Amino acid sequence: MNVSIVGASGYSGAELMRLLLKHPNITITNVFAHSSAGKRVDELYGVFRGQTDLVFKEYSVGLVADADAVFVALPSGEAMHIVPELLKAKKRVIDLGGDFRLKNLQSYQKYYQREHVSAEFLSESVYGLPEWNCAKIKTARLVANPGCYATSAVLPLIPMLKEGIAEETGIIISSQSGVSGAGRSASLNYSFSEVNESVRAYKVSVHQHTPEIESAIMENGPSNIKVTFVPHLIPITRGIYSTIYLRLKKAVEHGEISSIYKKYYSGAPFVRVDGSSVPEIKNVNYTNFCDIGFHIDERNNTLILLSVIDNLVKGAAGQAIQNMNLMFGFAETEGLL
Amino acid sequence: MNVSIVGASGYSGAELMRLLLKHPNITITNVFAHSSAGKRVDELYGVFRGQTDLVFKEYSVGLVADADAVFVALPSGEAMHIVPELLKAKKRVIDLGGDFRLKNLQSYQKYYQREHVSAEFLSESVYGLPEWNCAKIKTARLVANPGCYATSAVLPLIPMLKEGIAEETGIIISSQSGVSGAGRSASLNYSFSEVNESVRAYKVSVHQHTPEIESAIMENGPSNIKVTFVPHLIPITRGIYSTIYLRLKKAVEHGEISSIYKKYYSGAPFVRVDGSSVPEIKNVNYTNFCDIGFHIDERNNTLILLSVIDNLVKGAAGQAIQNMNLMFGFAETEGLL
Amino acid sequence: MNVSIVGASGYSGAELMRLLLKHPNITITNVFAHSSAGKRVDELYGVFRGQTDLVFKEYSVGLVADADAVFVALPSGEAMHIVPELLKAKKRVIDLGGDFRLKNLQSYQKYYQREHVSAEFLSESVYGLPEWNCAKIKTARLVANPGCYATSAVLPLIPMLKEGIAEETGIIISSQSGVSGAGRSASLNYSFSEVNESVRAYKVSVHQHTPEIESAIMENGPSNIKVTFVPHLIPITRGIYSTIYLRLKKAVEHGEISSIYKKYYSGAPFVRVDGSSVPEIKNVNYTNFCDIGFHIDERNNTLILLSVIDNLVKGAAGQAIQNMNLMFGFAETEGLL
Amino acid sequence: MNVSIVGASGYSGAELMRLLLKHPNITITNVFAHSSAGKRVDELYGVFRGQTDLVFKEYSVGLVADADAVFVALPSGEAMHIVPELLKAKKRVIDLGGDFRLKNLQSYQKYYQREHVSAEFLSESVYGLPEWNCAKIKTARLVANPGCYATSAVLPLIPMLKEGIAEETGIIISSQSGVSGAGRSASLNYSFSEVNESVRAYKVSVHQHTPEIESAIMENGPSNIKVTFVPHLIPITRGIYSTIYLRLKKAVEHGEISSIYKKYYSGAPFVRVDGSSVPEIKNVNYTNFCDIGFHIDERNNTLILLSVIDNLVKGAAGQAIQNMNLMFGFAETEGLL
Repeated sequence: MNVSIVGASGYSGAELMRLLLKHPNITITNVFAHSSAGKRVDELYGVFRGQTDLVFKEYSVGLVADADAVFVALPSGEAMHIVPELLKAKKRVIDLGGDFRLKNLQSYQKYYQREHVSAEFLSESVYGLPEWNCAKIKTARLVANPGCYATSAVLPLIPMLKEGIAEETGIIISSQSGVSGAGRSASLNYSFSEVNESVRAYKVSVHQHTPEIESAIMENGPSNIKVTFVPHLIPITRGIYSTIYLRLKKAVEHGEISSIYKKYYSGAPFVRVDGSSVPEIKNVNYTNFCDIGFHIDERNNTLILLSVIDNLVKGAAGQAIQNMNLMFGFAETEGLL
Repeated sequence: MNVSIVGASGYSGAELMRLLLKHPNITITNVFAHSSAGKRVDELYGVFRGQTDLVFKEYSVGLVADADAVFVALPSGEAMHIVPELLKAKKRVIDLGGDFRLKNLQSYQKYYQREHVSAEFLSESVYGLPEWNCAKIKTARLVANPGCYATSAVLPLIPMLKEGIAEETGIIISSQSGVSGAGRSASLNYSFSEVNESVRAYKVSVHQHTPEIESAIMENGPSNIKVTFVPHLIPITRGIYSTIYLRLKKAVEHGEISSIYKKYYSGAPFVRVDGSSVPEIKNVNYTNFCDIGFHIDERNNTLILLSVIDNLVKGAAGQAIQNMNLMFGFAETEGLL
Repeated sequence: MNVSIVGASGYSGAELMRLLLKHPNITITNVFAHSSAGKRVDELYGVFRGQTDLVFKEYSVGLVADADAVFVALPSGEAMHIVPELLKAKKRVIDLGGDFRLKNLQSYQKYYQREHVSAEFLSESVYGLPEWNCAKIKTARLVANPGCYATSAVLPLIPMLKEGIAEETGIIISSQSGVSGAGRSASLNYSFSEVNESVRAYKVSVHQHTPEIESAIMENGPSNIKVTFVPHLIPITRGIYSTIYLRLKKAVEHGEISSIYKKYYSGAPFVRVDGSSVPEIKNVNYTNFCDIGFHIDERNNTLILLSVIDNLVKGAAGQAIQNMNLMFGFAETEGLL
Repeated sequence: MNVSIVGASGYSGAELMRLLLKHPNITITNVFAHSSAGKRVDELYGVFRGQTDLVFKEYSVGLVADADAVFVALPSGEAMHIVPELLKAKKRVIDLGGDFRLKNLQSYQKYYQREHVSAEFLSESVYGLPEWNCAKIKTARLVANPGCYATSAVLPLIPMLKEGIAEETGIIISSQSGVSGAGRSASLNYSFSEVNESVRAYKVSVHQHTPEIESAIMENGPSNIKVTFVPHLIPITRGIYSTIYLRLKKAVEHGEISSIYKKYYSGAPFVRVDGSSVPEIKNVNYTNFCDIGFHIDERNNTLILLSVIDNLVKGAAGQAIQNMNLMFGFAETEGLL
């Protein structure tokens, strides 16, 4: 099967290439990148030397004619300009950015601070969370691949809220992310000397994954979900750690929580729940796993959920390939284990 | 003035030496360390070469005869065995460990998992938080220097809770700490290869600073304080980042929060509050400052406090010297700016 | 094909498991580890959860009856106690430690500071550098897998010295290694707080890879090779950077160096030579590649070679599997790309 | 005494401010920075909050009227445009950049790749290495503060070469530097995700400190010095590690090397030589010390020197203040211990 990648020169694009080059069923026909057009992929990313002769090209819809699926790994705000023509050209599209994740146009405008130029596709797009939207993903033309923070938050949250274990409001999500989440760009804010040996919160309670987390949970049953989300930048390259605080509706036993997770995730190949240990980022780095732990703070009727993912894999490229596998009938884990 | 340090070979002890060697009014007469007894200080810590000829000695109370003040930087559980004899010898003692911070004996036993052998001194000991206990510290014989996490949490919290801005319960404290907080010891858990490029929560909601935070707040007015505290280990050497979530009792304006902090901290030389920026660990590293920021999440009636300290300075040795300055009539900032 | 691993709980052992679990032709039948015997592999290394049910066992030769090949990933000095019985049991053995790399017994005693108890196997063992010893490796009973530093040094050096480009003596090798090279153990020397934000040289000119580098070069032609080797510990987890300084016998052109490397390595699937760029560790991390660059300092008649590997892959487990592939007739790259 | 800083917004400028604010004899009257003109210093560097009210200004020579000394911390190539007018205005100038370090105009043009517009001041400028040029520095109008790599290399090298212990040619200097040495700027090359968990050599044998090292040594006696210098970028913020390889003219004893260093550096307050241990960057971070170790490789008649400095202190701002102390009659260590 043939695929192409638009926006292939960023970290998510490079991770897509890394994984797809090992996928037994896939040929990458074209990789597009505006500012690196004309450069060999292995010139930009030395890691690919000897593994591919691909050259970045300037995107045009005519050049994806041979592709069955197109991954769009452009910055948010750019995908909406090309997705319509890709769909018109009968391509199945997986967008790794934020343009098609929110059904609510007002939320998009508020949190992304721009107008949407392709709002007519919002209702059709399928939120690409395979553990919950598998059936819809299989037949989707347009999959909106979830955000990295959102993935780390909603996988542990949905089962608890769907089962009514905890209050729908007052949910606290405190997350820490590696720097690759900020993308590949020249910026003093992400320079080594500024980030190393430091930590900083950012976009405190106004991050654009806030409405995405809420809508992803509500799509699965519970309503009126309200979360306070604070992301922090920490000096690691890859990985997200989310610590989530929920108010219990009534006392629960440790075993109940385990049972609920087992009910929903026993068949999920990339979700590993373990109530007896604490997740660590190093256990998921370079993998498509989401590890979940939990702890009940009985003194305060608080349920603490802990989850980790690799932001570039389960938080971006890996999940996108998991979606592709479902869309095209491959085994869900193909190329990802 | 002469001081001695018991337990001087650990990171807090070394930081005490680093700061005290620059303090214009202080001579360090003796440094004690059991396993390094007989070694030169600069053999263990090359940074001190050319700056001191001190040699670690085996502690005995007779050897502190020439000291006016004694810093005890032993692991928690050890200080309680020697503090009584130091007080009897008319020394003024600053204990950097946890043995004399909790007035409540049951809390000590529950969270430190041991019996207390000097419980009769708990009522006398003064919690060494200079911004709130200045008067008591000045005349104290025994100062219990606050824990690092506790310092980072209670400095932003007390003004908000004292003024009744937020609920006394349901307080969430999500903290991240550098590895030096775990002390100087051979342990696989803190080896570079295990910690680097990873994050892990630990002692989830059962950390011993939980009751310390609650009692330090309650000592200043509010009662029935209940916090859920989750510390995380991250790959930096120094620094603590605490992100705190409070439920607002009623809507507040940004300016109100600023005013309250100004009311309590305008005269505090080491507390810097700035509601217009987000604290960063790098701004306080190697300093005795606590930087505080805040944000109101109006959607969720939640007040978010953010604070940073250097765990070895304001979280340990620096604060201990700030306490010593108050106890002995030096300027509060002497040797610390 | 069945393999077992003795000493599987260390970092090299874990990396062997990571790679072998993805190898299409291999089943791991047993993993042995003394201090972790009885523990599940995924209890020690959470990364393996959901990927294997293997349990560490206490080694005995009887338990490897079902294995065609045995990887020995014990610390140097331990392998020599069990390799004889493994060979007697008709197993083909790949030893990742240093016990069988040096043919010269005096060198072993001098650099490893111990007596050799199985010296009779030194002459039979084959140095497992596939790019140079392919034919011998294919039929070997006992392969001594090269050291990590040695691999990074000899791959760029052999072609230059074999072709007589540079002096055989006065060779300087200045290397930097990540901390995983020190193994998985509780040690203050390798604790995060001691290693982070620092660098230190160690075993200056007396490291045990010194004679290994010399003999590996001399095995391929040149004689009287003498190197000065200084390793440095730097704060990364994986990777080795070797910068090598050679005295040119006469002026050479850039193109000559390229041609020589092409002559020897054009068919080597894991050696990538590029004279127009500078190697970077990030390009080889988690891969079996050795990237080589070079530069001629004409002012000083000095040839500078630069090479990078992942110490746990091409410097240990990956190269061991490359050797296994050759020994058992698989494609050299199987499971490694 | 009043000083001003031109180019104060970079890392060297900030380090000058950090150190000068603690210097008992100094008032900083003005700090100049083009792109940050109008901003408060503590807006750019939060670490200074509560410690200074200085505001960056656009430089003009009229604004330094009140300053006795002017530090120029501009990028190389910019200082030469303003130094002449500063000298004309009777200011004593310490330039932290490279414009006045090389006496040889051809070298400047070759290594800095530009024309020199103030070459008439090259002969007057004094190379600000206090351990060797103390007398000249005391009376200098214009001090060229040494480069960071050069400082780390020449301090260990000069005594050995002056005493004729080793060959003047074939000197190998392999250095590793933290990222702050690259300055404060938005660049993909120095972004966290590109630098972390990696190492790369750069400007291999063509770095501009090459002629500086050679001339600094030759200024002290030996002639025909030729060095091969290779710098590497490693993932730490501060610090330089230089490992230097010399060909011994004849066999030497360990004690001879010690004696020579003692002869030259026993009175140098910031040079610490220890032949029995290996230098570590962490021992000099945030200090003005240069730590030197050495090792004799008798097998190869090679002398190995090892040295460490903090590139922002002894490699820049600290050494500049040491020079200022000498120029204005303060104790050499004032404000630096």
